[in-house]
Amino acid sequence: MPAERMRWWGWGDPERAPVLSPGALTLLRETLGIVSEPRPPVALAGVRLESSAIPDRALAALREIVGADGVRDDQAERVTHAAGKGYPDLVRLRAGTPDGAPDAVAYPSSREQLVAVLDACAQHSLAIVPFGGGTSVVGGVAPMRGPHKGVLALDMSELASVLDLDRESSIVKVQSGMRARELERWLAREGLTLGHFPQSFEYVSLGGCAATRSAGQASTGYGRFDELVLGLSLTAPAGRIELPAHPASAAGPNLRELIVGSEGTLGVIDELSLRVRPAPDVRIYEGAFFEGLEQGAQALREMAQSHTTPDVARLSDENETRISLMLAGAEGVKTRLGRAYIGARGYGEGALAILGFEGEERDASTRRSRARRIVRGHGGLLVGASPGRAWLRSRFQAPYLRDELITHGAIVETLETATRWGNLMALHQKVTDAIEASLRTCGTPGVVGCHISHLYETGASLYFTFLAPASTGKEIDQWQAVKAAASRAIVDGGGTITHHHAVGRDHVPWLEREIGEGGIDALRALKRQLDPQGIMNPGKLLP
Amino acid sequence: MPAERMRWWGWGDPERAPVLSPGALTLLRETLGIVSEPRPPVALAGVRLESSAIPDRALAALREIVGADGVRDDQAERVTHAAGKGYPDLVRLRAGTPDGAPDAVAYPSSREQLVAVLDACAQHSLAIVPFGGGTSVVGGVAPMRGPHKGVLALDMSELASVLDLDRESSIVKVQSGMRARELERWLAREGLTLGHFPQSFEYVSLGGCAATRSAGQASTGYGRFDELVLGLSLTAPAGRIELPAHPASAAGPNLRELIVGSEGTLGVIDELSLRVRPAPDVRIYEGAFFEGLEQGAQALREMAQSHTTPDVARLSDENETRISLMLAGAEGVKTRLGRAYIGARGYGEGALAILGFEGEERDASTRRSRARRIVRGHGGLLVGASPGRAWLRSRFQAPYLRDELITHGAIVETLETATRWGNLMALHQKVTDAIEASLRTCGTPGVVGCHISHLYETGASLYFTFLAPASTGKEIDQWQAVKAAASRAIVDGGGTITHHHAVGRDHVPWLEREIGEGGIDALRALKRQLDPQGIMNPGKLLP
Repeated sequence: MPAERMRWWGWGDPERAPVLSPGALTLLRETLGIVSEPRPPVALAGVRLESSAIPDRALAALREIVGADGVRDDQAERVTHAAGKGYPDLVRLRAGTPDGAPDAVAYPSSREQLVAVLDACAQHSLAIVPFGGGTSVVGGVAPMRGPHKGVLALDMSELASVLDLDRESSIVKVQSGMRARELERWLAREGLTLGHFPQSFEYVSLGGCAATRSAGQASTGYGRFDELVLGLSLTAPAGRIELPAHPASAAGPNLRELIVGSEGTLGVIDELSLRVRPAPDVRIYEGAFFEGLEQGAQALREMAQSHTTPDVARLSDENETRISLMLAGAEGVKTRLGRAYIGARGYGEGALAILGFEGEERDASTRRSRARRIVRGHGGLLVGASPGRAWLRSRFQAPYLRDELITHGAIVETLETATRWGNLMALHQKVTDAIEASLRTCGTPGVVGCHISHLYETGASLYFTFLAPASTGKEIDQWQAVKAAASRAIVDGGGTITHHHAVGRDHVPWLEREIGEGGIDALRALKRQLDPQGIMNPGKLLP
Repeated sequence: MPAERMRWWGWGDPERAPVLSPGALTLLRETLGIVSEPRPPVALAGVRLESSAIPDRALAALREIVGADGVRDDQAERVTHAAGKGYPDLVRLRAGTPDGAPDAVAYPSSREQLVAVLDACAQHSLAIVPFGGGTSVVGGVAPMRGPHKGVLALDMSELASVLDLDRESSIVKVQSGMRARELERWLAREGLTLGHFPQSFEYVSLGGCAATRSAGQASTGYGRFDELVLGLSLTAPAGRIELPAHPASAAGPNLRELIVGSEGTLGVIDELSLRVRPAPDVRIYEGAFFEGLEQGAQALREMAQSHTTPDVARLSDENETRISLMLAGAEGVKTRLGRAYIGARGYGEGALAILGFEGEERDASTRRSRARRIVRGHGGLLVGASPGRAWLRSRFQAPYLRDELITHGAIVETLETATRWGNLMALHQKVTDAIEASLRTCGTPGVVGCHISHLYETGASLYFTFLAPASTGKEIDQWQAVKAAASRAIVDGGGTITHHHAVGRDHVPWLEREIGEGGIDALRALKRQLDPQGIMNPGKLLP
């Protein structure tokens, strides 16, 4: 069983004491007007589950494969595998009423066991939810059984070893249950890095990153997870696909790109060959302040299109900049940013960018000095290393804060998209407007912030966060209304329904708008081939 | 009809006079020991074709769709669409005995016509061979009919327009029948470049580049063609898949990567959205001389793994270096390379690298000076711009030379692979040995040269050329023996069966070794979905 398990009702280390900064309290009270008392989650024993539907014969078959300890159907195990970490998941868990739970959890510890578990599930009509770090924010691990008799969470945490390191070729081969943080620690001892730091870094599994096309905070520099995967193995109900780790190939369609992003619906990704890099000699993070989002976006575009890309680039719009500064604790930051100076330049609230340069010292400093020239060319102010350091310190903290904000009566959610540069500002406006309007319609006006990140030569991603007073007792309806409005604005506005959160359960209704009926039919044909009984992760990805 | 049509029996402009340099004559006589008289190809009228098998009703249906001028079944049209440009294709064409020919050639000039042609072919049981530039060297356009009554070449040259340019996003949208050279000319007028320069650049179509995962000479810098494709449209017998040009997405499996590389077996790629770049301000090409392939490979690896990659990098092994110098005309080059100096350093024949840096001046020169440091660090000698200029001048000339060498009695063929850095030298040796041994077994010992190119952080490609006296009258058997030996050495030695020539007809027997039975089954499931009657390019890609 994994050593570092998350708190069942929210994010992170269960031992870690909840803290809410003065800035966050100001945000809650002054910006959102929330004055309600904190509402902590129910106790674990208070969570109501239906009794396990798994037939005794199926349970016995599974125990035969993975041993008695390798199958669990106690309440704690079922609850910790009952949901991911999206807002509706958290609301339901905290109330003690999750939207179902797996009937049992299995922990295979070898490929042979994995294959046998899949066979047994096919035989006993059990749906399988592959479970890595359990960090999905789009319902990717929701325990949906489809037409089957029960549902098994397949916890991959026992398949978590490094299998091989080819240092000369910069390729590491791992079992997919390994967590990103564990691999990063292992690589650090070898002087290497994977460079993959999603916000879920501390818990996410590598298999989960592959299955969902994860992008990390430094993916502009190190590449999205799909670019790190060279080879892989998929164990599917109908057989295995094993693809070698060639640096590139023209041998037909790229099946790797079919399996990456398949979200557990075709089979279980059990091994991965990943590209690594030397651990960076330097990490230079600094802030830049632009008059507004548009000016900053032009600067980022110029960087992306002129080989000057930072490894991390995120540019907050005016709203997110204001919220970030408030959360960071007002006065110190205001001083650091030279607010008076900024004000004198007539920049008002402005848009704050964090630019990070990592790697070999000379290369990082060359890119940095070019980027600084571009910042100045677009009227940006370089505001030094403090904002960069502050961001680095807190880069994995947002999910902890979210839990506290929920406790204090807020709805907090993030959603994201990507589009071409020529459409970026328009889409930013449309999605912001849609979320704001929807929150107003719900009777809970709130704030919507956004940052541009993940730069490509052709475009970038937009990452939205919205906060509002929660509609007590109707949080799910409220969330659904806003989510639908935002998703509609994204697909109508020419964005992808998701740049890095994946489709999961929540984006299923929107996938066809993106890949068409022909695309859906093609994916279904593949699923029929690999998972003829449809036991793999029902209700996700495909409508 | 396309303005610039190739000579039917070989490469390039039919008006261009054949030339064989003194160096090439030396190679033929002294190195290969060939003294036979030149054997020119037969006249077009002497090419023997079976009469067109296309039923009158089918022909009438096609004429109804594309007009009388849009369907051709005269001998000249059938012969010019009878084969690609692989060695066996050329041997058969030159002898006037092609391995079949399409029964007719259709030129759709709109998407509606394209759809209707596919429908008509399904109805009349005609196989379809999508035909772009006709430059395949692996039998990708071989007129195979499979179980159908006839075979139609679908010439895409009338669908060759630029549809849109989004300059801010660096995306151009084109019809796929456009040739790479035409798009490059169009973009040059806009100050842009696609940066895709395969050896077939002058004739290859953009749809062909996408369908075969083309890599160009500058793909180390500009990216392989699969990295340039953002969006596309596939017209398949069972419907259309249209994928938007998002810069990136996590919305499930990447269907684009299934269609790219599908080699006409799933449908016809008819539109492409491609990433472009500013036309380079500078183009700096220069030579470097290493003691041997291994030292040079270490230098290239260091470049690829330290953000110092040249846009073009090709490192010839000792054999290819010797042949190149011979072909380039001996004395001048020897002098330019300072042979005496090189000899004094004990480098013997050595390994010549061409390094090219393109783009914005400061960026190109920064990368260049870092690369030069790396060259020196591996004992390499910088030998100035002459070899670079010479390579640039002759970069598209090899296929013309090949025709002349064939005329003079040589077998000349190229084949390629890619593997991880840690396996590169071993694979180079194995494939070289396999080709040499096979040529000896055929009783025609020859020379085998190779260059490393297309650098990735994790590996590189190996591109082999072999020359030997042709076994007159048994050239195809000779070619098959060597090709099989080389292919076996590649897959046994851990390389991909093709890094950029695609699978076509010639690599079909080897694909399963690469993607396994599970991979083949997945591709077959996809084909059944999109092309249920199996009319699209039978005999290619899938066994």
